[in-house]
Amino acid sequence: MNRSKPRVVLRRQVRPFTPASADPLSPLEWHGDSLTILDQTRLPWKLKRRKLRTVEDVSEAIRTLRVRGAPLIGIAAAYGAVLAMQSNLKHRTYGSRVRAWKRAIRALLSTRPTAVNLGEALQRMERVGVTLLRSRNPPLVLLSELGKEAQRIHADEADRCWKIGSCGAKVVPNHARILTICNTGALATGGIGTALGVIRIAHEQGKVRMVWLMETRPLLQGARLSALELHHLRIPYRIVVDGAIGALFYRKLVDLVIVGADRIARNGDFANKIGTLPIFALAKLSDVPAYVAAPLTTFDPQCRDGKGIPIEERSEEEVLSIFERKIAPESARAFNPAFDVVPAHLVSGFITDRGLFSADQLADLIKHSSLR
Amino acid sequence: MNRSKPRVVLRRQVRPFTPASADPLSPLEWHGDSLTILDQTRLPWKLKRRKLRTVEDVSEAIRTLRVRGAPLIGIAAAYGAVLAMQSNLKHRTYGSRVRAWKRAIRALLSTRPTAVNLGEALQRMERVGVTLLRSRNPPLVLLSELGKEAQRIHADEADRCWKIGSCGAKVVPNHARILTICNTGALATGGIGTALGVIRIAHEQGKVRMVWLMETRPLLQGARLSALELHHLRIPYRIVVDGAIGALFYRKLVDLVIVGADRIARNGDFANKIGTLPIFALAKLSDVPAYVAAPLTTFDPQCRDGKGIPIEERSEEEVLSIFERKIAPESARAFNPAFDVVPAHLVSGFITDRGLFSADQLADLIKHSSLR
Repeated sequence: MNRSKPRVVLRRQVRPFTPASADPLSPLEWHGDSLTILDQTRLPWKLKRRKLRTVEDVSEAIRTLRVRGAPLIGIAAAYGAVLAMQSNLKHRTYGSRVRAWKRAIRALLSTRPTAVNLGEALQRMERVGVTLLRSRNPPLVLLSELGKEAQRIHADEADRCWKIGSCGAKVVPNHARILTICNTGALATGGIGTALGVIRIAHEQGKVRMVWLMETRPLLQGARLSALELHHLRIPYRIVVDGAIGALFYRKLVDLVIVGADRIARNGDFANKIGTLPIFALAKLSDVPAYVAAPLTTFDPQCRDGKGIPIEERSEEEVLSIFERKIAPESARAFNPAFDVVPAHLVSGFITDRGLFSADQLADLIKHSSLR
Repeated sequence: MNRSKPRVVLRRQVRPFTPASADPLSPLEWHGDSLTILDQTRLPWKLKRRKLRTVEDVSEAIRTLRVRGAPLIGIAAAYGAVLAMQSNLKHRTYGSRVRAWKRAIRALLSTRPTAVNLGEALQRMERVGVTLLRSRNPPLVLLSELGKEAQRIHADEADRCWKIGSCGAKVVPNHARILTICNTGALATGGIGTALGVIRIAHEQGKVRMVWLMETRPLLQGARLSALELHHLRIPYRIVVDGAIGALFYRKLVDLVIVGADRIARNGDFANKIGTLPIFALAKLSDVPAYVAAPLTTFDPQCRDGKGIPIEERSEEEVLSIFERKIAPESARAFNPAFDVVPAHLVSGFITDRGLFSADQLADLIKHSSLR
């Protein structure tokens, strides 16, 4: 697995993404003993940064979607784990430190259920943490080493984004009108993004004519966040309501669909933002290729098919109010599943950091090798 | 054609709808020389009524969706035409009165392009108006007769709703979970509604377990208006975001789809609120029956197929702002087609005021008889 640090990324041909404060949209920064995040619930109106000093701060930020996007919540949780270890060290014995450490990891893990990256990153942090505790390092060394592991997780994600972007740009035809949903860019990944990373590199190759951004109700990540990123990157886009996909396909205005994924099962079924399944169904009916862009770490070999993917149901209030104003009668109720499960047969291909695969090829790859 | 007045409607078995101020959700009332409407842009927060005294007031109300719903805008335009005739009478000669009358009708017609009801109602008013002008009636008689014609249009719509509701309730199975979009109830029709009228009568027959209300972005007619009506009728419902249809069908939570229509072409292709096409596509893929509930007046024999239906494109601002708050970056652009065209082969049947038809049966009916 590539353990290169962010600066290694700079050697690539295309314009580099700088995961530092130089970029106004940099979603998080690590300071060794605290984490600064861009509060994504305040975008696009305010570029408000928040300093998180404790693991509880980080959990709250993940749960309330101040930090969101499958890869980014893995990174944030990894840094959160370092903050947990910091306060863990008040315990005197090895045993109580390990117990407190595992408790903290479990608490972080419980913040969001669907994205696989959270579990992936936290497993890695837990293992390294236990090893470091066992070898009785002095606290400063222990925290510094654990911090480095979190930074490697961050750098790995950024690196995977570049690979996904370069791989995916090859499937983008000239003058492409690309439809995407939610936010899968720098704000979601800590790198250039997955689906939006592909669009970014294809744009740098002069191939993107238009991006159709689904607004992505209930939380409007498409209209609020992806629009902001595309604006900064000067990529032409139009926002459409989620119900408009029928009109777009019916009028033949879409050449390609690219979305991200929060978890991919062994058979290629995948979970992504609510609204993704209708897009893939209509793309299939309209013979428009529809791709998933995600690092191989998004694959969950434990998960046989889509039925095994846990789907987060979020509060009714997210649907019933917009900007704290009720959109429905006072007594109204809502149903708010946050993710769709899309069956593998609707997917044209998986754009990954190891290349482009069909669902079957992926299943084979996972069966015959130790990918992770 | 049935010319019964509203009170005739009271004889039916089910609880009657009273199109008068007794009903807090009555969408409009005619006073002989002015029209009071319920301002639907203020619902569900305020039950604000506005008095419209001129044809310009009525045009503004239709254009800005204070009055909306295909049948209701036909009714409102008919009353608006009476107000136009009122000010027309300032002209002295027969010729100038007829010219001014035709100009007023054209202005009303241009307020919204997609719904066929508007043209239908205005054609009827124009014809009656010209006849009345030609026979040189005294102004008071002329206005009173023209007002009666508008009231007949209103009563006809209410009557058709009952027939559609009774016919449609037969296709609703027991314990039905019904999915619908936009608002097609009393607020849209001047009667009990089309799709929502079917749901209302099926509910009175004890057959409705749950209504899934698509919130219907951009203007949220599902969450704002249909929820209000279902609340008043005590019909159980849940609001879902428009992107959630995939999850509903995938989890087998929908037994039946019923929607309204703004225009139906000769071959059975129909236009309805943006978001309708993905619902019908997914219903087809999931083997869930999907019906259109609309009076036969919604059929446009001039229109061969869906390609001939004019689709209104509304302002980008409707998408980019919610409650006057921008949801996207300042510079953002949007694409905002207001209606979908759904191909006939996705429709299980048309629930009309003359019975239940397949697309083919409808085409035959239109070919072999003078329906209108």
